[in-house]
Amino acid sequence: MTVTIRDIASDAGVSVATVSRALSGNGRVGEGTRERIAEAVERLGYQPNDLARSLHGGATGTIAVLVPDITNPFFPELVAGIQAVANERENLLLLCQTGEDPATAVRELRHLRRKRVDGVVLVGGLVPDDALAGAVEGLPLVTVDRDTGLSGRWSVRADHRAGGRIATEHLVELGHERIAHVAGPEHLSVAQERLGGYRESLEASGLEADEALVVHGDFGEAGGHEALRTLLRRRREFSAVFCCNDLAAVGALHALDEAGFRVPDDVSLVGFDDIHLAGYLRPALTTVRQPIHDLGRRAATLLLEHAVPGEAERHEVLEVSLVRRDSARSVRGRR
Amino acid sequence: MTVTIRDIASDAGVSVATVSRALSGNGRVGEGTRERIAEAVERLGYQPNDLARSLHGGATGTIAVLVPDITNPFFPELVAGIQAVANERENLLLLCQTGEDPATAVRELRHLRRKRVDGVVLVGGLVPDDALAGAVEGLPLVTVDRDTGLSGRWSVRADHRAGGRIATEHLVELGHERIAHVAGPEHLSVAQERLGGYRESLEASGLEADEALVVHGDFGEAGGHEALRTLLRRRREFSAVFCCNDLAAVGALHALDEAGFRVPDDVSLVGFDDIHLAGYLRPALTTVRQPIHDLGRRAATLLLEHAVPGEAERHEVLEVSLVRRDSARSVRGRR
Repeated sequence: MTVTIRDIASDAGVSVATVSRALSGNGRVGEGTRERIAEAVERLGYQPNDLARSLHGGATGTIAVLVPDITNPFFPELVAGIQAVANERENLLLLCQTGEDPATAVRELRHLRRKRVDGVVLVGGLVPDDALAGAVEGLPLVTVDRDTGLSGRWSVRADHRAGGRIATEHLVELGHERIAHVAGPEHLSVAQERLGGYRESLEASGLEADEALVVHGDFGEAGGHEALRTLLRRRREFSAVFCCNDLAAVGALHALDEAGFRVPDDVSLVGFDDIHLAGYLRPALTTVRQPIHDLGRRAATLLLEHAVPGEAERHEVLEVSLVRRDSARSVRGRR
Repeated sequence: MTVTIRDIASDAGVSVATVSRALSGNGRVGEGTRERIAEAVERLGYQPNDLARSLHGGATGTIAVLVPDITNPFFPELVAGIQAVANERENLLLLCQTGEDPATAVRELRHLRRKRVDGVVLVGGLVPDDALAGAVEGLPLVTVDRDTGLSGRWSVRADHRAGGRIATEHLVELGHERIAHVAGPEHLSVAQERLGGYRESLEASGLEADEALVVHGDFGEAGGHEALRTLLRRRREFSAVFCCNDLAAVGALHALDEAGFRVPDDVSLVGFDDIHLAGYLRPALTTVRQPIHDLGRRAATLLLEHAVPGEAERHEVLEVSLVRRDSARSVRGRR
């Protein structure tokens, strides 16, 4: 049974208005009355009603995060970072999944606005800018990994372009000249940026950018697996593959294995993300580390501290770094 | 700007009470008036206020799930199942992480009750039964993977004991006689049940149950890695390992690799869960499949359909099955 302010009034033998004044701290209440009310609150285990408070314009103490797919291990690590900050500030976190579908994302955002959440972290770039603007009007919003040209006034992202560069540079330094790229979905800015970094690095190294060595997959194992098979069918020479993320690298590793190529003896492989599992793969995956947990923490901190009307806009870009493990090594010969 | 019922009244040129009657469908409102109100609702983009509705005792349309750790891939898959059902019924889902800490879980449950969520799915067995009863009083609750002896009246779980049995039986059928077990945390019922199934199967096969072959780890890679190293230090003969879950198997695989043992040539390995990644490991992991997504779906369905005062209690146990891949094979010799 939920205890109401009416129960407190009845138990303390005073009016509801008096209890209300005592609890809010507004208005005069006699010392003895205040004590009786405090005792009743304690005895009955009364808890102030957050919903009622939120109705009167206060914060609901609830924020939301929208991710494309919680089963891709990048997102739980990000969500864990958001949640850590939310918990520190006694906020609850609503989790929404968009399934990579812009219409679902817009519907969820409208639902969240109706629920009067205090703010939203939107992860990924799949919602068109104009649809986004309409759906979140008046709602504090921090975007993660959206195109920087878009309308969000508060954003956090990793430096995907630099990541694409350092992954490719590492392979170039190891002596590879024919470096393939399993790219992410073409319409996502993070995929475009990583691909852009790959191309920049090849150009800076004076290597030929053979477009037949670029295959678009997705950010999952199946996509990486299929992309690598496509690459093999093209029968173009390559000795290394930079994959758009670690899951795609897992799929690529699998496809290489099936086709009889050993990693790293025959083909070197570099991933992106450094999900928790990357170090436990065999061979342990050389990859570009994103500070995933920190991305989440920064997004939640921006949301709770700065994403309010009147505050200046902020765009944070976090650095990435190369983690050298066992899946990439010096080139030994050509295939 | 949020549109209120007062704005509608003013725009339609009628009283607030009339708008309220028209919107609720209770009470008579003239046809012309109803049309003017409908036009105002459309023109102003009015959306009924869920918070206000919930204050009057209705459902808030929000449920919550508490998991130990969202970065363990078992939990996102479970959460995805819960979320699928929540979305189908236009419920929002609050995500809470307990970090395996009972006190955190109890605090979160109290917070959720204060927020008047419609119900909670509590995953895992770490909260003592009496603390749980106090924290969730009056709150619909479905437990997942808690000890069946506990107080929850609605529960869903996989048949962990049968899982332990079929994993071990598979290894026995492959000719293994010295089968080790990397067990989960001793205080968790799911770990106890999987260990129980392992022991039952050894006994039924007439094999010696050597307690030196059982090492307790946790449900993570690091725990599995450390447990396998402990096992190797004991210098007891074994040709197969049943691991309490797939992540522990990933860690065990890593430790075996470091020690120079090949899987499955030297040592066979069986996991538990069949997380998405199991099939992409090298060797692809033979494991016990839990219907993880379905566990989540069933839990959410029970919560939204049956976990209400007056409804009879329900305890659902979902079946597990063996998935044969490449990490376990017939014994070839002894070490």
